Amino acid sequence: MDKAIGKQKFNAVFPQLVEELEEILVGYGMPSDAIAWFKKNLNYNTPGGKLNRGLSVVDTYALLKGYKSYDDFDDEEYKKTAILGWCIELLQAYFLVADDMMDRSITRRGQPCWYKVENVNEIAINDSFMLEGAIYIILKKYFRQDKFYVDLLDLFHEVTFQTELGQLLDLITAPEDHVDLSKFSLEKHSFIVIFKTAYYSFYLPVALAMFMAGINDDKDLKQAQDVLIPLGEYFQIQDDFLDCFGKPEDIGKIGTDILDNKCSWVVNTALKIATPAQRALLDANYGRKDAEKEKICKELFNEMKINELYYQYEEKIVSELKDKISKVDESRGFKGDVLTAFLNKIYKRQK
Amino acid sequence: MDKAIGKQKFNAVFPQLVEELEEILVGYGMPSDAIAWFKKNLNYNTPGGKLNRGLSVVDTYALLKGYKSYDDFDDEEYKKTAILGWCIELLQAYFLVADDMMDRSITRRGQPCWYKVENVNEIAINDSFMLEGAIYIILKKYFRQDKFYVDLLDLFHEVTFQTELGQLLDLITAPEDHVDLSKFSLEKHSFIVIFKTAYYSFYLPVALAMFMAGINDDKDLKQAQDVLIPLGEYFQIQDDFLDCFGKPEDIGKIGTDILDNKCSWVVNTALKIATPAQRALLDANYGRKDAEKEKICKELFNEMKINELYYQYEEKIVSELKDKISKVDESRGFKGDVLTAFLNKIYKRQK
Repeated sequence: MDKAIGKQKFNAVFPQLVEELEEILVGYGMPSDAIAWFKKNLNYNTPGGKLNRGLSVVDTYALLKGYKSYDDFDDEEYKKTAILGWCIELLQAYFLVADDMMDRSITRRGQPCWYKVENVNEIAINDSFMLEGAIYIILKKYFRQDKFYVDLLDLFHEVTFQTELGQLLDLITAPEDHVDLSKFSLEKHSFIVIFKTAYYSFYLPVALAMFMAGINDDKDLKQAQDVLIPLGEYFQIQDDFLDCFGKPEDIGKIGTDILDNKCSWVVNTALKIATPAQRALLDANYGRKDAEKEKICKELFNEMKINELYYQYEEKIVSELKDKISKVDESRGFKGDVLTAFLNKIYKRQK
Repeated sequence: MDKAIGKQKFNAVFPQLVEELEEILVGYGMPSDAIAWFKKNLNYNTPGGKLNRGLSVVDTYALLKGYKSYDDFDDEEYKKTAILGWCIELLQAYFLVADDMMDRSITRRGQPCWYKVENVNEIAINDSFMLEGAIYIILKKYFRQDKFYVDLLDLFHEVTFQTELGQLLDLITAPEDHVDLSKFSLEKHSFIVIFKTAYYSFYLPVALAMFMAGINDDKDLKQAQDVLIPLGEYFQIQDDFLDCFGKPEDIGKIGTDILDNKCSWVVNTALKIATPAQRALLDANYGRKDAEKEKICKELFNEMKINELYYQYEEKIVSELKDKISKVDESRGFKGDVLTAFLNKIYKRQK
C-alpha cells in the first residue's frame, strides 16, 4: 500500500462529496449565496489536516480484506470506504470549528480559524452544526440500503456524545483563565483523553472499517475497543509528554501546555507525587501565561523525573497492548495486525 | 383531552429523562462535577417554554388513535410518545442556546440566556452539542427495538439539517449589523421560514406521532407535509405581521423586527411593490436601531396597506389549506383532523 497514492486517492473523493451535497441543496431550492457559503465552510474546514483518522479507515479495511494494493478495491467499494473516512474528518471539523471558538484560538492548520475569517464570526456556530449534519446526509445517501446502516448511525451518535462529554470535562476542569489544581487528577485526565480523543480518533475508524468489511460481531468490536481505547490514551499521554519534554525541532512546535493550564498527564503525575513544597510551587506557577513561571514548572518536572515515570508507563502499556494483541481471537475474521499497525505508528514516535 | 392535565403529565416525564441520562453518564464513569453541569444544562434550557411542539406529538398521537382522554394511554405508550415530544424540545433547546449566542441576545424565557450565566460563556457551544446528543441517546434507549427506529433517526437528521440550512440563509441574508435590502426577497423569506421553522415545528411533531401510531406510509407522510409546511409558513408570516401590526397588549411584547433588520414578510412584501421613492425610504430607514427611523418604516407600511395584503394572503392560504385537508385520503388511517387541529390553533390568533 503506497502512502502517497493512498492520500491522493483519498483526497480525490472529497470534491465529489462537496458536489453531491451541493446537488442536494440545489434540490431543496436553496439560494445560491447560501450554497456557496456552505461549500466554502466544507472546503475550508474539512481537508487540510493530516487526515490520519480518515486514511486509517481505508487502510484498516484493506488489512481486514487482505488487500495488498489500492488496485484490489473496486471503485464503489473504495468510494464507500473513503466516504466513511471523510465522515470522521467532518466530525473532526465540527469539533475543531467549535473548539477554536471556545478556546479563542487564532490559527488552525496555518490559516485563520474559521470564526476569524471575515464576515463569519458567530455564524461559525451554525456552520459547525452543518458540518456534523453533512455526515448524516452522506451516510443516508451511500449506506441506507446496507444492513449495518443503523449500526453506523448508532456508532456515530455514541462516539460524538462521548467526545462532547470529554470536551465538557476538559472545559470545566482546566479553564484557561482560572487555575485550580485541586480539580486535576490522573483519573480525570484519563476520562478526558479517552472520551475527548480515543473514541473518535482510534476506535471509530477501526469500527467503521469493520462494519464495511462485514466483521462486526460484538465480540470483535469489543476486542478492537479493548486495545484501541488504552492505545488512544497512550497516544495522548505521549502527546502531553512531548509537549513538555520533546525537542521543538522534533515535534515541530513549541509546547504551551504549562502556560495554558492544560490538564496534562505531566502535571497530573507531578501532582500525585509532589511534596507539599513542590505542590505549592505548582499552585503558584502552573498555568500562568508567564515564561518565568513556566520555566519554574519545567525545572520542577525535571527534578521530579517525570520523564522517567513516562518511560516506565510507556514500556508497561506497550507490553500490555502487545500481549492483548497477541491473544486476539481471529476466528471470525478480525485481525490483530490492524491493532499492531496503530501501535507501530505511535510507539517511540518523536513527533 | 384536558389541556392542563396534558401539560402536567408531559412535564412529569422530563425529570425522569434527566435521571436516566444521569445514570448513563454514571455508567461511563463520568466525574460528578461534569454530571452536575450536564444536568443543569438540560434543566435550564429544555423545559420552561410553551412546549407547543412537544405537546402536539402527544395530542396528534391521541387523535390518530381515537383517544378521548389521557387515561386511554397505557403507561409505556404515554411515556414513549411524550419522550418523542421531549426530543423535539431538546432539538429546540440545541438551536436556541446557539441562536442566542449568534444573535448576542441577553434574555430568553425571562431568564439570562445560557451563555450569559456565570462561568458558562463559550462552553455553551459544547452544551448545545450535548443537548442534541441527548436526543440520540434517548431514542436509542427507548426505540432501538422498534421497526421505525431507523426512520426516526433519518427524520431527526433531515429536519435538523433543514433547520440549520434555514438558519444559515437567515444569518447571511439579514445580519443585524449590516443592512442590504437587495439581498431580501419573498422567495428567500419563504425558504428561510419553511426551513428554519416549519419543518421542525410543524412537520416533525406530526411525523413522529405518525411513526409512533404505525401510520407511516410515505403517502401519508406526504399528505401531512403538504399541509404542514405551508401551514408553518403561514404561522411565521402571521408572526411577522403581528410583530409590526399587532397591539403590544395582545401579542405580549413590543415588536423589534424593523429595528433588528429582520428578513420579515412585511418588509419583503413592501419591497416587492415599492415605488423607487418608497424603496429609497426603506433603504435609508429599515434595520437601523433608531426609533425615529423605525417609525418612518411603520408609517410607510401603513401607507402601502401591507395589512390588507396580509388579510388577502391569510384568506387565500386558509381556504387552500382547508381544501387540501378536506381531500385527505384517510384510507390508511391518517386523519385530516390532525391537520385541522393545527390550523385552528393558528387562524385569526392575536398572540
